[in-house]
This record gives sequence, structure tokens and C-alpha cells, in this order.
Amino acid sequence: MTITITAFEKSPDGGKGLARDTRVRWALEEVGQPYDVRLVSFKALKEPAHLVLHPFGQIPTYEDGGLALFETGAIVFHIATHYPGLLPVDGNARARAITWIFAAINTVEPPILDLGNARMLEADKPWSAERLPMVMDRVRDRLGQLSRHMGSSEWLEKDFSAGDLMMASVLLRARGSGLLDEYPNLAAYVARGEARPAYQRAFAAQWAVNKR
Amino acid sequence: MTITITAFEKSPDGGKGLARDTRVRWALEEVGQPYDVRLVSFKALKEPAHLVLHPFGQIPTYEDGGLALFETGAIVFHIATHYPGLLPVDGNARARAITWIFAAINTVEPPILDLGNARMLEADKPWSAERLPMVMDRVRDRLGQLSRHMGSSEWLEKDFSAGDLMMASVLLRARGSGLLDEYPNLAAYVARGEARPAYQRAFAAQWAVNKR
Repeated sequence: MTITITAFEKSPDGGKGLARDTRVRWALEEVGQPYDVRLVSFKALKEPAHLVLHPFGQIPTYEDGGLALFETGAIVFHIATHYPGLLPVDGNARARAITWIFAAINTVEPPILDLGNARMLEADKPWSAERLPMVMDRVRDRLGQLSRHMGSSEWLEKDFSAGDLMMASVLLRARGSGLLDEYPNLAAYVARGEARPAYQRAFAAQWAVNKR
Repeated sequence: MTITITAFEKSPDGGKGLARDTRVRWALEEVGQPYDVRLVSFKALKEPAHLVLHPFGQIPTYEDGGLALFETGAIVFHIATHYPGLLPVDGNARARAITWIFAAINTVEPPILDLGNARMLEADKPWSAERLPMVMDRVRDRLGQLSRHMGSSEWLEKDFSAGDLMMASVLLRARGSGLLDEYPNLAAYVARGEARPAYQRAFAAQWAVNKR
């Protein structure tokens, strides 16, 4: 059986690695599992063949034999529980690492997604200039709290985990706005994530698709 | 050892059960675990004693002996993996149920949170009337996809799971806007969740706190 994931035929970010398949590629590289990629066009995302796999018409999906999953967090979690390397073995440390997966996608990512919507979908609206600073401040609230919590720590808990993989991936999406660099310890944390050989391989793989 | 969770001393919703401690109470009731509740004031949420437990200054938290967790999704997941009743035992069915936990909080909830912000934090802004329909349509996109996927199914997968607990809890937050009732199968799904004795007990417990 081979693991097969889906990715954009052409990512909206042009290969910056911000599409969510990068998170899954990174996880698979960390645990050393080979995988195939099936590229999906924007049109095909909304067609029945893909909606059977992903009810919300997005990428990535994950197929392995009889198992079909969607939702990046769930896929990364599945990889982390099935292959060693992304979660501590000890029960309490493991639960803490899993907590950070959820914190990344449910507490830190929502205001960053909202900022993305404000900068892209609503950039031409009459309220854009007045509303944007408010949306940016909501992102700052979360980044400030995370920055104070992390201090000079290398990772969120003792060792790198799937929680860091998700948090660094979420924070990467705030870099383009300039907000990440307002928090030097978070910018350095993300850079440590990007420096990992597994991330480098994942980034290169998605880049190769988008720069064909 | 007793499980201790935190909840608002006075919930912003006045006892409608939309604060996130209800999700954790519901999970504990489903698996039949008793728990203590420590109530936290808005002021105390941002003070060091609470920030040690929850870096983002929110409720709920979860303490059990030497383990301290935050983030509702992580807590519900922890309960579901440590006590039987909220996740299938079979590997593939289990992974599918977990997928729905993530889909609830990372795909369906973000536009609903954004709608909450638009209706509360931005209600007095000059752009509110023009922007609100756009935000509501983003919620409709997700509810429509979920509605088509569910059809006449009773639960998201074969049996009720932690995925349904999270999805129904997320959808409850869309009811006040009238959007949930635009999708009768989703409204009926949420009503099935609310009818569960464990939900009833959880709701009553948070109601008792907020109606003192």
C-alpha cells in the first residue's frame, strides 16, 4: 500500500509552501514515509469524485489502503500516531503535544485566516482600510500571548512535535503581513522549523509542482 | 484524583450553553466521569495563575493529577481516548471520527466565529450592514457542503462519536443567526445531539452556574 495525498495542481500562493499539503508533506518527511501525490485542479475540487473524499472540496486528502481521510489536522495527527517521531511516547507529554496541534488550528489560525480574507477577498471593499488594523490587532493578541508563553524556548514543549509542525505552519501564514516579525522569538521559532531537513524536502516537493 | 475543569464565572451568553466548557462537560457526561468545576472571572482569565494553565487566557482547562491541558478540542480528544464511549475502537473508523473533530473546529467553526465577531464586535461599524451578508454567505458555503454530505444520516459516521459532539456544538453557535434552520437536516442533527441525556446534564450544569 502506498500513501496518496492530494495537492493543488497550481497553488494559489505560487509555491510559497502555504497550501496545506505542505503540512502533510512535512509530517510524512519527518516520519520517513514515502508518498504519492495526486494533483487536483480548482474545478475538480468541487466535482463529485473529489467531494466523496473531501466533503468541503479542499486539499489535502490522505488515502492509505482502505482508509480515506481529509482535514489537515486530522491527517497530521494520524501520521503522528501511526509512525514514530512526531509525538512523545509518555502519556502526559503526548497529550500536551496534541494540545498544541489544536491550539495552532483553533486558536492561532482563525484570526490569521480572517486577516487573509481581509487582505484578499475584501481588499477592494470600501471598509478595507479602516477594518484591516482591527483584524491585524486580533492576530497580534494571539501572537503576543504565544510569544510571552514561549519566551526563549526552542519548541512548544521539550522536544519538537506535531504540535510545533502545525504551529510553525500556521505562523508562516502570518509572515507575509509583517506581523510575525513583530515577535522575534516567534520568527526565530518558525525559522527553526523551516531549517529542519524534513521541512526542506517538503517545501522543495511542493515548489517543484508549482514551478513546472 | 478528580478531574477539574474551568468555566466562566458568568458566561457571556448568559447560560445558552455556547461557552466551550459545555463541550467538555458533555464529553465527560458521555463517558460517565465525574468532574469538579473551578469558576474563573474575566479578570482572572488574564492573570498569571490562569495563564500558566492556558497561555491564551481562555476557558476551559482540564486538570487531572499531573496533567494540565487547555484547548477544547484537545480536552475532548483526551477524554475520548482515555474513556470508552466517544470513539470507535476500529482503527479506520476511529481515524474517521477524529477527522470530524478537526473538521468541526478548523473548517466549519472559523466562518461561524467570524460571523460572531461581525455581529458583536463590529455591529456598530459603518461597514456592518454591507459586510454581514458576505460573512453569512461564507457560513452558508460550509453548512451547505455539510448538509449535502450528511443527507439523511443520523450521525457523521455510523455511530455517535466525539466528532458529532464537536460538530453539533459548533453548529449550535450558528443557530442564533438563523442560518442553521436554513438546513433542516443539520437542524435535526443538532437537535438529536441536544436530546442526548449526556448533553442535557451538561447543559443543566452550566445553566445552574449562569442562573445563580
